[in-house]
Amino acid sequence: MKFTIVKKNKENLSRRGRLKLYSGEVQTPVFMPCATVGAVKGISAEELKSLNFELILSNTYHLYLRPGEKEIRKFGGIQKFMNWKGPILTDSGGYQVFSLGKNFRDYTDEIQNTSLVNINEDGAWFKSHIDGSKHFFTPEKVIDIQKDLGSDIIMVLDECTEYPASEERAAYSAKMTHHWARRSANYWKRFKKRGKAIFGIVQGSVYKNIREYSVMQISALKFDGIAVGGVSVGEGKKHMYEVIRWVGPLLPKDKPHYLMGVGEPEDIIEAVKWGFDMFDCVLPTRLGRHGTVWTTTNWINFKKFDLRKLKLRQDKKIIMKNCLCPACSNKYSRGYIGHLIKSNEMLGMRLASLHNLWVINELMRKIRKSI
Amino acid sequence: MKFTIVKKNKENLSRRGRLKLYSGEVQTPVFMPCATVGAVKGISAEELKSLNFELILSNTYHLYLRPGEKEIRKFGGIQKFMNWKGPILTDSGGYQVFSLGKNFRDYTDEIQNTSLVNINEDGAWFKSHIDGSKHFFTPEKVIDIQKDLGSDIIMVLDECTEYPASEERAAYSAKMTHHWARRSANYWKRFKKRGKAIFGIVQGSVYKNIREYSVMQISALKFDGIAVGGVSVGEGKKHMYEVIRWVGPLLPKDKPHYLMGVGEPEDIIEAVKWGFDMFDCVLPTRLGRHGTVWTTTNWINFKKFDLRKLKLRQDKKIIMKNCLCPACSNKYSRGYIGHLIKSNEMLGMRLASLHNLWVINELMRKIRKSI
Repeated sequence: MKFTIVKKNKENLSRRGRLKLYSGEVQTPVFMPCATVGAVKGISAEELKSLNFELILSNTYHLYLRPGEKEIRKFGGIQKFMNWKGPILTDSGGYQVFSLGKNFRDYTDEIQNTSLVNINEDGAWFKSHIDGSKHFFTPEKVIDIQKDLGSDIIMVLDECTEYPASEERAAYSAKMTHHWARRSANYWKRFKKRGKAIFGIVQGSVYKNIREYSVMQISALKFDGIAVGGVSVGEGKKHMYEVIRWVGPLLPKDKPHYLMGVGEPEDIIEAVKWGFDMFDCVLPTRLGRHGTVWTTTNWINFKKFDLRKLKLRQDKKIIMKNCLCPACSNKYSRGYIGHLIKSNEMLGMRLASLHNLWVINELMRKIRKSI
Repeated sequence: MKFTIVKKNKENLSRRGRLKLYSGEVQTPVFMPCATVGAVKGISAEELKSLNFELILSNTYHLYLRPGEKEIRKFGGIQKFMNWKGPILTDSGGYQVFSLGKNFRDYTDEIQNTSLVNINEDGAWFKSHIDGSKHFFTPEKVIDIQKDLGSDIIMVLDECTEYPASEERAAYSAKMTHHWARRSANYWKRFKKRGKAIFGIVQGSVYKNIREYSVMQISALKFDGIAVGGVSVGEGKKHMYEVIRWVGPLLPKDKPHYLMGVGEPEDIIEAVKWGFDMFDCVLPTRLGRHGTVWTTTNWINFKKFDLRKLKLRQDKKIIMKNCLCPACSNKYSRGYIGHLIKSNEMLGMRLASLHNLWVINELMRKIRKSI
């Protein structure tokens, strides 16, 4: 992997860059749509390409459970499996295990004992959402899985600290993340040299001192890139922006900075100013499936617009003026898409998702241009 | 509407034709994919176009309930509403009311009394599947609705006789259909002259004498085209083929013949030999959504292949050799599509649906070529 900063902004920390990965090159700042089970929901690889996405994210947790990383390896890796002719980043599964952890609290005592919150230093127990079977992730195992998947960028296993968490709990949780990060760095030394990259993850919840300490710990391990996790977990914008402002300036300047799970246009605009280069989020497709679309006139302020609740049911206008997305450029009307969503018709979900994906990627283009 | 027979086969009743409709021209024999709520499930108008479909069907019952025919009229008709730049046939809603009629048997006595089977000569009471509200369809009303929708081909209200039905019941039911057809023909006289067409529907269940009588009755009313309904309602291939063979030779030669609801490739091949020109069915997308795809090597025999039950989970082959559908030509593998379907991922449903739609339309092209 090679990361080149092409241009820096003088007024803030934003920078335009080029990320050379095993399967291709990526312009940064970049937004990665989420191909959870190996597909961005409802959207084909050709459509992603025509929307000009250069890097996508897929989920280790989901692919490990089904079809299994060994199966995907037989296909020649996740890129060939899903027919995507570009680079892919895979998460470590830590976030999904964390999400399951939250659900575990409603389960029986027996399952409680295997919940993420009670895990030991070795790794994380979790139960499959498909069949309830028990699985164990270790820092080494998730690297092996991601190697089998053939990811261009591998993420280390972290403990995504829940929100709210006490300072004590957040410190303990960050320690676990650091311990796992060291094990990941050690394990990775065996393999290196194949063009693939590995990123470390900073945690620390909403506590300045822990976040700063976490940046130091993770930076010291010399990963190819550095990610900031544990934001967008319910802490609210105020806390999220605080974390971005604390951490952004401290991150190693020559490495790509990845803000995990952040995908609201305004949040991306803010984070880029603090030096972040990479973003991922399920929002464009999740909102789209429920009929909510982003609109903007100035590309600074964005509105969310629910197509199921049109004032004018026979609204013949396209979603957004001057929009070049596949839905708007083909003249699909708000009224029609709203009708399809209300009728639970896939095509409506697709058209709204395509619009949101186009908006977010057009925003990234404009951001890169403005730097 | 103008129907021109371009070529006739000497060995059987099959013919190649050209159907000139208000919104465009159609080559026959033709297959119409079903845009139930105003979209062929998951498939965009641009995709239908690129699959070379020339005529599609939409459902009066569904559009009447949501968004309502008056709303669609405000959009400038169903074609503008759904962004389809070609002709559209709408059914009369009779079949949907019939389908509901069957379900009504599980309902309370109060609802029973409004079931299709107990309807009077005036028309058909039914309950909305969306909110349970009561509605009344008459032959005149469904013409008005379809006029508002802007259909190129309007279908008359018929009573789709359930299977099994006694000869007495079938005769009574056909009588209702004939009575409604006469009212439709009378009502239509008021409007004509706008380039739009109206088709009558033959019923009669599995009884030769009733079918023959029904052809006579409907033919006498001089509709623009003639449809055969009440097949593919559970009577089985043997009975369906009998009906096709009884009725086919009796239909007025200069009118298009539409076999309603038939969409298995083998059934279409058989029906074309008996003079049928038009077909519709939800099968290509319904099968596709559940992961079942058609394959063929000779375009005479067709296999159904369940992608969820692959012998080889890592099957890298495309669905069908030499297939030019969007899924196969983009090299999506059976293993990948099967994985997506098992994961309940929209993209898998789309890819399998696109394949089936391509197969059925390619079959029609080959049939036309062979005549």
